[in-house]
Amino acid sequence: MAIQITGTGSYIPDLVERNEDFHQHEFLNTDGSKIDYPNETIVQKFKAITGIVERRYAKDHLTSSDLGFFAAEKAIEDANIDRETIDYIICAHNFGDVKANTIQSDILPCLATRIKHSLRIKNPKCVAYDILFGCPGWIEGVIQAQAFIKAGMAKRCLVIGTETLSRVVDKHDRDSMIYSDGAGASIVEEVAGEGTGILAHESASFTYDEAYFLYFGNSNNKDLCRDTRYIKMHGRKIYEFALNNVPGAMKACLDKSGHDISEVKKVLIHQANEKMDEAIIKRFFRLYKTPTPEGIMPMSIHKLGNSSVATVPTLFDLIKNNKLENHELNKDDVIIFASVGAGMHINAFVYKY
Amino acid sequence: MAIQITGTGSYIPDLVERNEDFHQHEFLNTDGSKIDYPNETIVQKFKAITGIVERRYAKDHLTSSDLGFFAAEKAIEDANIDRETIDYIICAHNFGDVKANTIQSDILPCLATRIKHSLRIKNPKCVAYDILFGCPGWIEGVIQAQAFIKAGMAKRCLVIGTETLSRVVDKHDRDSMIYSDGAGASIVEEVAGEGTGILAHESASFTYDEAYFLYFGNSNNKDLCRDTRYIKMHGRKIYEFALNNVPGAMKACLDKSGHDISEVKKVLIHQANEKMDEAIIKRFFRLYKTPTPEGIMPMSIHKLGNSSVATVPTLFDLIKNNKLENHELNKDDVIIFASVGAGMHINAFVYKY
Repeated sequence: MAIQITGTGSYIPDLVERNEDFHQHEFLNTDGSKIDYPNETIVQKFKAITGIVERRYAKDHLTSSDLGFFAAEKAIEDANIDRETIDYIICAHNFGDVKANTIQSDILPCLATRIKHSLRIKNPKCVAYDILFGCPGWIEGVIQAQAFIKAGMAKRCLVIGTETLSRVVDKHDRDSMIYSDGAGASIVEEVAGEGTGILAHESASFTYDEAYFLYFGNSNNKDLCRDTRYIKMHGRKIYEFALNNVPGAMKACLDKSGHDISEVKKVLIHQANEKMDEAIIKRFFRLYKTPTPEGIMPMSIHKLGNSSVATVPTLFDLIKNNKLENHELNKDDVIIFASVGAGMHINAFVYKY
Repeated sequence: MAIQITGTGSYIPDLVERNEDFHQHEFLNTDGSKIDYPNETIVQKFKAITGIVERRYAKDHLTSSDLGFFAAEKAIEDANIDRETIDYIICAHNFGDVKANTIQSDILPCLATRIKHSLRIKNPKCVAYDILFGCPGWIEGVIQAQAFIKAGMAKRCLVIGTETLSRVVDKHDRDSMIYSDGAGASIVEEVAGEGTGILAHESASFTYDEAYFLYFGNSNNKDLCRDTRYIKMHGRKIYEFALNNVPGAMKACLDKSGHDISEVKKVLIHQANEKMDEAIIKRFFRLYKTPTPEGIMPMSIHKLGNSSVATVPTLFDLIKNNKLENHELNKDDVIIFASVGAGMHINAFVYKY
């Protein structure tokens, strides 16, 4: 028995928000003071570090569960399955449905319920729940699907990551430029055969000192309502944390899989920040005393930004469908999926394509 | 190998909100019109249906994750385990942390992260995530813990249900009287032996017509901000749905466990509404052509109201500790845990004590 991803889908929102669109924003320091240099410089520095040139925002009439539904439809079609045979719908997100120009998260009912409703699935034995696990939520959903299959509780699961971070950003915070909207979905199921699909996984929660590295906090603009909160992060701490812990988690996972570093063809890592991802991958290969191979780490961040739980499944879907230039996947390729985010959580799985 | 609940804990908030405390509320119909009869009559009718005399509210300085932390501490103490040996912390809730007198749900980071942080657990291999599954969230968390144990991914899990519904009620809606705050927690783990602990489970999501029976909606007072939303329900539809589907799910679960209806000593059912729970239990026994035994269904709703995910683990904790009059548990008792709620989700597990 093997556990494979037999179908993928993604939804990339239509609205393109370019770096230049931030030139008119009033960026402030966390203490509320004005930033000394002009916006053009702020944006330039931002691009040099994160790699982001533009990002996508969902149209006002759509919410996170809509995006997740669009991606799910494609994954079901791609897997060519009867939707009534899905045993679990697992939806990862971080803020639920936030309507445009409002501040409340709507998570009643949970987003998996809404998506199942939109998919018009009738079978009540298809269990639909949400998981909150920061940006690594989609990977963790795949790991949970794997658990249900191994435990004999499921054969086929739909795992979705969907997010509309544009609805929770503080426009006075430079970090707001990182975040974007999107959704990715996949069908994870038991198939015949051995030695393919998910070979090993790793999952961890660092909460002792790190729990609030990403948090829900006030605007840098002290004149705004103190009761309204936004996605906030301690960027430098996250950068150091990720660098110190993600490569080791990926190594533990690969070693568990029984495959050699030389067999790894792609590393699909959460699109958080280009410089950070490059440093992580470099340190990962250094753990094996190996230089980082060219083209091992596909990146979508330049055009799509950081859409949290959606980055990894979207990246996988793009490559599978030959929509990411200079990247392709071939049968038996060993791939590492990895993520890090709010919690701070880290996870990874090794996958034989 | 058996999977048992080896420790329990609950947190019952200090603030008692009695039915009389609602006499001064301005209750309105959903169309915004005044209700014809006096509040005393409204409250009396409410009590006759739901059984609720008083409910508990958390103090202003506490949030849902605080309540969950208090319950978790007790469960760890009760199980007498080293907290660093916990493999998973699974936290079920519906609205995250909502600070008193604010309207935003704070779920970044997830509540399991916050609770693990407060528990001062260092082990990063203890994976902390949240599950959103309506009121049946705690039971579903236990079912997921069971999956991880069966799949060989965990030996010991902490499953928490915590909620502060008092923070999301519409004061102009009579249904606001149902909701309360609370938290329950339990340690679920692999132990030696056979035929005890969790014997069977059942889980279902009815979303085709039922997805929005419970939802996040506007106040009955049309003068209040249309962007602010509250917990809302279609009570009659839920009542009928539960009556039509919960008894069958419980029966499917019991039949799977291999135990006879005559062996069932207690049914711990979600404390949603006394009349509804009584109708469910009656119909359940009728499926076996058996009268409902006296004292089979312990109730805590009279004094504690409906605290969503917290009702079932709290009820179990109270009985285990002989804190619920006329109810006790003895070794080898067969118990059914069951719940129904927003989604609409239904679940159950059969447990040999």
